[in-house]
Amino acid sequence: MSVAVQSKKDISRLEDYLEAIYNLNEEKGYVSAADISERLAVKPPTVSNMVRNLADKGYLDHTKYRGMRLTPLGEKIARSVIKRHKVISELITMLGVDNQTAYIDTEGIEHHVHPSTLRRFEKLAEYLRGNPQTLKAIREFMEE
Amino acid sequence: MSVAVQSKKDISRLEDYLEAIYNLNEEKGYVSAADISERLAVKPPTVSNMVRNLADKGYLDHTKYRGMRLTPLGEKIARSVIKRHKVISELITMLGVDNQTAYIDTEGIEHHVHPSTLRRFEKLAEYLRGNPQTLKAIREFMEE
Repeated sequence: MSVAVQSKKDISRLEDYLEAIYNLNEEKGYVSAADISERLAVKPPTVSNMVRNLADKGYLDHTKYRGMRLTPLGEKIARSVIKRHKVISELITMLGVDNQTAYIDTEGIEHHVHPSTLRRFEKLAEYLRGNPQTLKAIREFMEE
Repeated sequence: MSVAVQSKKDISRLEDYLEAIYNLNEEKGYVSAADISERLAVKPPTVSNMVRNLADKGYLDHTKYRGMRLTPLGEKIARSVIKRHKVISELITMLGVDNQTAYIDTEGIEHHVHPSTLRRFEKLAEYLRGNPQTLKAIREFMEE
């Protein structure tokens, strides 16, 4: 079992892989190293190393020639990463930021938000969704 | 003149230095490399390299034995970095995130927010400051 302290950058990368593997499996029903390489714009040998790393950590089952699949733990993390992305992206878009900027900012921000902050972003978006007149007033105020 | 493309990480670091130099100058009236080293928890030779780099870029005047001072351009960037930090920190704190978490999240987020997103965060905070009953309703909704 690895006891190495992980840097923030390592954790961000790990989360990106879990997210990509989860999404690819949803889209195609299976996941190959080539798919991951293409999705994350990363070279195949780097993918191979990371896949081994994820398997060592218990996030991934990987049988040669039989593809890979997230373990329940890996899937749980992937879901929370994807949810976090959606929450941040929804809130920023709601405030009127254009889609492309919202996407870039979400990609930058998502690994840096504490769960308690994320929960508040989520509740804020939920509140504004449920109170469209308030959202309208805020949006109008922004255009002043 | 340097034409090298700067990575996001390089820009983040540069912004951290300009912010630290600006703040140190406000606090002490002068800035030494040792102060920067302490403030940013960076080794002195690294500071020396970065100070030379900032001077080359026109952000800093640096005369040996006479200390350093930001140029108008360096000061302008430092002010915008500090303002960005304040805007993000204020909004997150307003939503009820505790100070320590807000500080850590702001440090993580601040280099990843597009100016147009930042402007909307700023206007949102301004709106909530001017409409305390709305902020109260949102805060109560968050506690549900």
